[in-house]
Amino acid sequence: MKKLLKKHSARSGLPPGTLLHTGQQKVAQPIITAIDYNSDHLEEKQILDIAQCADLKKKNTITWINIDGLHDTKLIEQIGQIFNIHPLTLEDIVSVDQRPKFEAFDENYIFVALNMLTFNNTDKTIDCEQVSLILGENFVLSFQEKPGDVFENIRQRIRQTKGRIRKMNADYLAYTLIDAIVDNYFLILENFGEIIESLEDELITDPTEKTFRKIHSIKREMILIRKSIWPLREVINGFKKSESKNISQATEAYFSDVYDHTIQIIDTIESFRDMVSGMIDLYLSSLSNKMNAVMKVLTIIATIFIPLGFFAGVYGMNFDHMPELHCKWAYPFGFWIAIIIIVAAMLYFFKRKKWL
Amino acid sequence: MKKLLKKHSARSGLPPGTLLHTGQQKVAQPIITAIDYNSDHLEEKQILDIAQCADLKKKNTITWINIDGLHDTKLIEQIGQIFNIHPLTLEDIVSVDQRPKFEAFDENYIFVALNMLTFNNTDKTIDCEQVSLILGENFVLSFQEKPGDVFENIRQRIRQTKGRIRKMNADYLAYTLIDAIVDNYFLILENFGEIIESLEDELITDPTEKTFRKIHSIKREMILIRKSIWPLREVINGFKKSESKNISQATEAYFSDVYDHTIQIIDTIESFRDMVSGMIDLYLSSLSNKMNAVMKVLTIIATIFIPLGFFAGVYGMNFDHMPELHCKWAYPFGFWIAIIIIVAAMLYFFKRKKWL
Amino acid sequence: MKKLLKKHSARSGLPPGTLLHTGQQKVAQPIITAIDYNSDHLEEKQILDIAQCADLKKKNTITWINIDGLHDTKLIEQIGQIFNIHPLTLEDIVSVDQRPKFEAFDENYIFVALNMLTFNNTDKTIDCEQVSLILGENFVLSFQEKPGDVFENIRQRIRQTKGRIRKMNADYLAYTLIDAIVDNYFLILENFGEIIESLEDELITDPTEKTFRKIHSIKREMILIRKSIWPLREVINGFKKSESKNISQATEAYFSDVYDHTIQIIDTIESFRDMVSGMIDLYLSSLSNKMNAVMKVLTIIATIFIPLGFFAGVYGMNFDHMPELHCKWAYPFGFWIAIIIIVAAMLYFFKRKKWL
Amino acid sequence: MKKLLKKHSARSGLPPGTLLHTGQQKVAQPIITAIDYNSDHLEEKQILDIAQCADLKKKNTITWINIDGLHDTKLIEQIGQIFNIHPLTLEDIVSVDQRPKFEAFDENYIFVALNMLTFNNTDKTIDCEQVSLILGENFVLSFQEKPGDVFENIRQRIRQTKGRIRKMNADYLAYTLIDAIVDNYFLILENFGEIIESLEDELITDPTEKTFRKIHSIKREMILIRKSIWPLREVINGFKKSESKNISQATEAYFSDVYDHTIQIIDTIESFRDMVSGMIDLYLSSLSNKMNAVMKVLTIIATIFIPLGFFAGVYGMNFDHMPELHCKWAYPFGFWIAIIIIVAAMLYFFKRKKWL
Amino acid sequence: MKKLLKKHSARSGLPPGTLLHTGQQKVAQPIITAIDYNSDHLEEKQILDIAQCADLKKKNTITWINIDGLHDTKLIEQIGQIFNIHPLTLEDIVSVDQRPKFEAFDENYIFVALNMLTFNNTDKTIDCEQVSLILGENFVLSFQEKPGDVFENIRQRIRQTKGRIRKMNADYLAYTLIDAIVDNYFLILENFGEIIESLEDELITDPTEKTFRKIHSIKREMILIRKSIWPLREVINGFKKSESKNISQATEAYFSDVYDHTIQIIDTIESFRDMVSGMIDLYLSSLSNKMNAVMKVLTIIATIFIPLGFFAGVYGMNFDHMPELHCKWAYPFGFWIAIIIIVAAMLYFFKRKKWL
Repeated sequence: MKKLLKKHSARSGLPPGTLLHTGQQKVAQPIITAIDYNSDHLEEKQILDIAQCADLKKKNTITWINIDGLHDTKLIEQIGQIFNIHPLTLEDIVSVDQRPKFEAFDENYIFVALNMLTFNNTDKTIDCEQVSLILGENFVLSFQEKPGDVFENIRQRIRQTKGRIRKMNADYLAYTLIDAIVDNYFLILENFGEIIESLEDELITDPTEKTFRKIHSIKREMILIRKSIWPLREVINGFKKSESKNISQATEAYFSDVYDHTIQIIDTIESFRDMVSGMIDLYLSSLSNKMNAVMKVLTIIATIFIPLGFFAGVYGMNFDHMPELHCKWAYPFGFWIAIIIIVAAMLYFFKRKKWL
Repeated sequence: MKKLLKKHSARSGLPPGTLLHTGQQKVAQPIITAIDYNSDHLEEKQILDIAQCADLKKKNTITWINIDGLHDTKLIEQIGQIFNIHPLTLEDIVSVDQRPKFEAFDENYIFVALNMLTFNNTDKTIDCEQVSLILGENFVLSFQEKPGDVFENIRQRIRQTKGRIRKMNADYLAYTLIDAIVDNYFLILENFGEIIESLEDELITDPTEKTFRKIHSIKREMILIRKSIWPLREVINGFKKSESKNISQATEAYFSDVYDHTIQIIDTIESFRDMVSGMIDLYLSSLSNKMNAVMKVLTIIATIFIPLGFFAGVYGMNFDHMPELHCKWAYPFGFWIAIIIIVAAMLYFFKRKKWL
Repeated sequence: MKKLLKKHSARSGLPPGTLLHTGQQKVAQPIITAIDYNSDHLEEKQILDIAQCADLKKKNTITWINIDGLHDTKLIEQIGQIFNIHPLTLEDIVSVDQRPKFEAFDENYIFVALNMLTFNNTDKTIDCEQVSLILGENFVLSFQEKPGDVFENIRQRIRQTKGRIRKMNADYLAYTLIDAIVDNYFLILENFGEIIESLEDELITDPTEKTFRKIHSIKREMILIRKSIWPLREVINGFKKSESKNISQATEAYFSDVYDHTIQIIDTIESFRDMVSGMIDLYLSSLSNKMNAVMKVLTIIATIFIPLGFFAGVYGMNFDHMPELHCKWAYPFGFWIAIIIIVAAMLYFFKRKKWL
Repeated sequence: MKKLLKKHSARSGLPPGTLLHTGQQKVAQPIITAIDYNSDHLEEKQILDIAQCADLKKKNTITWINIDGLHDTKLIEQIGQIFNIHPLTLEDIVSVDQRPKFEAFDENYIFVALNMLTFNNTDKTIDCEQVSLILGENFVLSFQEKPGDVFENIRQRIRQTKGRIRKMNADYLAYTLIDAIVDNYFLILENFGEIIESLEDELITDPTEKTFRKIHSIKREMILIRKSIWPLREVINGFKKSESKNISQATEAYFSDVYDHTIQIIDTIESFRDMVSGMIDLYLSSLSNKMNAVMKVLTIIATIFIPLGFFAGVYGMNFDHMPELHCKWAYPFGFWIAIIIIVAAMLYFFKRKKWL
Repeated sequence: MKKLLKKHSARSGLPPGTLLHTGQQKVAQPIITAIDYNSDHLEEKQILDIAQCADLKKKNTITWINIDGLHDTKLIEQIGQIFNIHPLTLEDIVSVDQRPKFEAFDENYIFVALNMLTFNNTDKTIDCEQVSLILGENFVLSFQEKPGDVFENIRQRIRQTKGRIRKMNADYLAYTLIDAIVDNYFLILENFGEIIESLEDELITDPTEKTFRKIHSIKREMILIRKSIWPLREVINGFKKSESKNISQATEAYFSDVYDHTIQIIDTIESFRDMVSGMIDLYLSSLSNKMNAVMKVLTIIATIFIPLGFFAGVYGMNFDHMPELHCKWAYPFGFWIAIIIIVAAMLYFFKRKKWL
């Protein structure tokens, strides 16, 4: 079971702007890669000396620096100094339990925190990794907790000389990164959609306690996903409404597009929630139905045989004077025929009550 | 059971503006038909060469081009070039899992995505087809996934020389198309209304597990319809508030009218949801009532016959000294009269408890 | 059971402004009555020739024309031409499934659609009739589906020379008509209040399945009433905010008053909904309580007599060597005293468990 | 049980501004008391001739006139004429089923209707009395249905020469009256808080059907209180936002204070509702638990003794050839030891299932 | 169990601005400590004579005065006079049942009431202490009910010469105090998160009535916490939107940061509520499942042995003519084989019904 909360409280009492990595260290050494490009130039390299970043920043080209691994807070601080980033932003980058948020700092840069979700197929849960983006005038910084992301396609597109991405500004790069993360949510939701459908089938054909626990755990995951995705609307809206000089007119239509996707994702989550709550009703009613079925069997058997048992008991009594006992045909006819009539009457009664 | 989600995730990682048809191919070849008219001119033809569209666009008359089949993305792209449509709009047209939306592009054209619902009478489900409309200065483009739509009446009206539609602009044509789709929702809702009413009857006369599954599946459909129709309000509101030059004063009252219908539809869906949830309560209580009835029968029978069985058992014992056994009238009077008194007392008790 | 939806879909595919009466014809012939008055003049007559209306309109006096019966769409159209009414408004008048709405048309007239509810005492349901009002500069038109309304008091007040109504303008007349309809809702709600109270009593003294069905049907009616009344707030607000020249300063306070009543009605409906849902909980818990009571009886009887039956069975066995059987006092003392002790112990156990 | 609705419908069909007292007459004769004061003057008297009010109004001092008893509509009308009050306001004063409301009339006076609640300790219900306040330039009128109110402390404070109230204007007097009514709500809520806590205890120690009925009736009272208090927010907000010349800057902070109290009261009501609904869950689960306990006892007894009864029955059969019967140790060892083993095995089984 | 409401009603009828401490006295004597600092000066002392405060206020340095213990209302009043605080604010400080609130008084000072929560680990409940802050031009006053708070880290930071806090204004100090309180909520929520997780485990492995009571009590605590924290959003928003001269540009980013934390806390509480309500469903379904299991055992045993008992009873009857009894192999073969076949058939039937 996934932990509900990362240890935010570890920060308690620290002065604001203190860099404390609240997540687990997931990589031995931070890996920094830089892609520097414009329409007719492309340079891609791993950065070992942080001073190189300053050079890249000065150049007129668009620079995308990606940092995998956030535990080395000293390094983060150095990057912050080079790119002139507010300490509170740096704090948000390393505190990996952020609510998705959009912040425009003094016309200087735009900071966005997002959650990158990965569907863990084995135990049907969601892993959540914080991705922080900083969009400056001609650079984009992306911070991730560990290597492995949904940006590989974007790197490919940059490498191809002809793509639109090579002709656009840094804000378009930021857009494509956000778009990749949001598109990935569709994948997650499709996985959940399939689980929900298979659970619905299970519910109708053979609902067990295990089915219900799966439903419950889906509901739980849904609550957590919803908490992750719901604020996204504001975030993307931040871009649409921002009047920062770093966002050009041309990319506005693109942000509108991501916004629509976000709304669609939120709608889908709400629908899923409604469906899951409907499934809970269905399960509970199936329990009652099963109980009813069990009780009917018991009642039918008991109602038929308990009276019969009584009659058998009566003729097992040892009274001296029980004239019926001595009649020759009493047993084969009197007794058995009475029994058969009683049983038939009962069966007819149950039939009419629709219990059979 | 209808799939919850179309495969949106197939788009993951593609650059924006890439045309990828996310639906199934439902027609062998896209069919393009054009109706070109003004108050005293009417031309209706099937378009085989896409270049003809450019001619129609140049003419001063109102042109309605309808495309059935979206899998040929090359064709869509050509149309986009002729009518000067933004790549993101084209992408929305072919990604057939859109949330209904309204977008005004640069005073140039208005794009609307809607869902055309069809009630499938055999399995009581809803089929959903995306219809995209583009309203330009003197043209309307409509994109559908497959032939067959709710626009046949409109074509008839255009063919009649006298109708109002022949005297109005392209925005009025767009309005009539949207109005036809919205009007069709009433039909869908009436179908659901009838199903709900028949389920209510079933619930009161003879509720079974099958009834509940039908209720559950209605609820499920309702969730999906709601997701389709809810955003409609914003869409139509988009027209009302739009200051695009393509929408004239004269048609504003008409859009207000569709808006009212939309609100009415949404109200009705909400009422249906409330009713369905009331029916679930009713069903669950009927289960409990049935259980109570079953249990009462069992209890009555067991409570009467188990004690009697004990008494019969007592006089079947083989103790040497049981004086009652040797009394002559013990069996016919003593025993049976005691039995009858006990039974009568029990029945009186049950009667007073209102179990009989 | 009341139909959930009137046949709105009959309109599907018709051009807007087509007059199609969607209700049932409830009167053989439309009945038109006119009351023409000012502070010192009063004329009341039935109108047979529609042209008379034009004369009344021209006069400086206030004219109230009431039309009972909407199936004669030709007649409605004529009235529309005389009073210069937009086709869409006429369409709304004859489509009797309107959501309550307020529309101000071009400084010309104000259109209001309302639902007049009548409580049907025999089957405890609500009948709903659409009343449409048109308020022009010096006239009010009211359209009803059938004769019989809540306006009789208003006619009386007009006939009295001294009333305020004779001194005020047409907007005040419109206000009194709306006020009469809204006041009538209080009557409906009081009826429901009484039903709810009597159901609560029934629930506490003797809840049966029938009680629950009544609760369910009240809930259903409440959903439909709510759908009818909820939009009323906007409608009356329309009057308050309208800047139409047809509404004078003097009547504004009166519309505020109706507005307050509307809010009060909506509050009451919401309270009723909450109460009804509380009653459902109460009923379900009473079912469980009943079941518990039934089960306790069964358990007590079975728990006492099944073990006793076993002991009686033991001494009915035919083993050759059962020494107890031959002891003289075994039956009257050994057996019966053991039985009495067992029963007493069980009863004590049940007492302690509070089952008795 | 308290009536859900006062007879508002009695007003149906009356012209607006008609004074009709919709409540019950609770006092034989209206009692009018006046307190006239400023910082160095105080006069307190019972008013028998209504004309005296006019004199008080003319004086420059602050006048508080309190009327207990609203059935004498003639008297109310006279007061209305003296203080120049709109007929609709007078109507609201005597229609004692008002929703709390705030109305500023033409810079002339401010009208406020409030509900004064009293907790009836014997049957744990709430009595609700309408209090109407009119705040004019230098006077406050208060209308109550019957003598007895929460204003006694305020009268005391006025009588003391030194209090702030003697130095402030009429708006401060209005504020203190409203504050007294709102403060009284806290008392009511504390009573409910105590009831809820004692019901929670009862639920945990010994939940019975009676407990649930108490919970249900608390829930019902809560619905009615909520309906009374919820609109209060708007009312007090009305004062805060009002630009009436009758409200001075100095008292604004005081109205903010009452506003905060109102919000706090509403929050508390919402929390109570949540708690009560949690208690309903708790009760229903306790019912299920009880049922489970009952069923376990039945099952254990039946499961142990029914099979044993069968074995006893077998050896009570009269077959000629049953060799076991003739074995000497069959009964004391064979039979009883088998029985003991079976019982022990069953008990072990129940133990493992945690039923014992 | 924690009291739901502090005794606010004790205030009923008192004039506004009366200082009445509504909490319990938790400290013998109020303890006043002052920290006076700027970037190169630091003075920390306990204040015994209240006049010292006036001196501190006059100085140009930043002064933080902390008062532990609110029962001495005379003292509070003196402080109020020194720092020029409105009587209503003083009243709010000593009425310790405040809803969190933000109030800016006349450009003079800002008043904030907050709840400082402490998690009581023994009985898993929350203690709630009101902390009131007053932010003036160069001073911050903090009022607490008793010694012991979450500010110790802040005092440490002030003592260190190098910290940012020494260089900033009084508004930054206010921010750090609020930040400390808000950060502490994360700790509380983590505690609850852990309780919820352990309850979820308990629910899945071994749900008992005790588990449900724990869930219920968590739900109850959650309702109270929510009531405490929900208004916080407005409070912090108050700072962000305030145009008071006491809040500088530089600290705005910091308040944005606390605001984000507040939203995150509220989101988490909402998620917890959803989870807890999911757990209630899970528990109720587990009850039904247990009942089903119990009933199945009973039904299987009864269904097998009651008919068998009847057959044994039949052959225990004493009819003279029962030919079966005299057949030699009737008992060992006829009887037992029939029994075995019946049992086998029943077991097969139960197997197919999935009851075994």
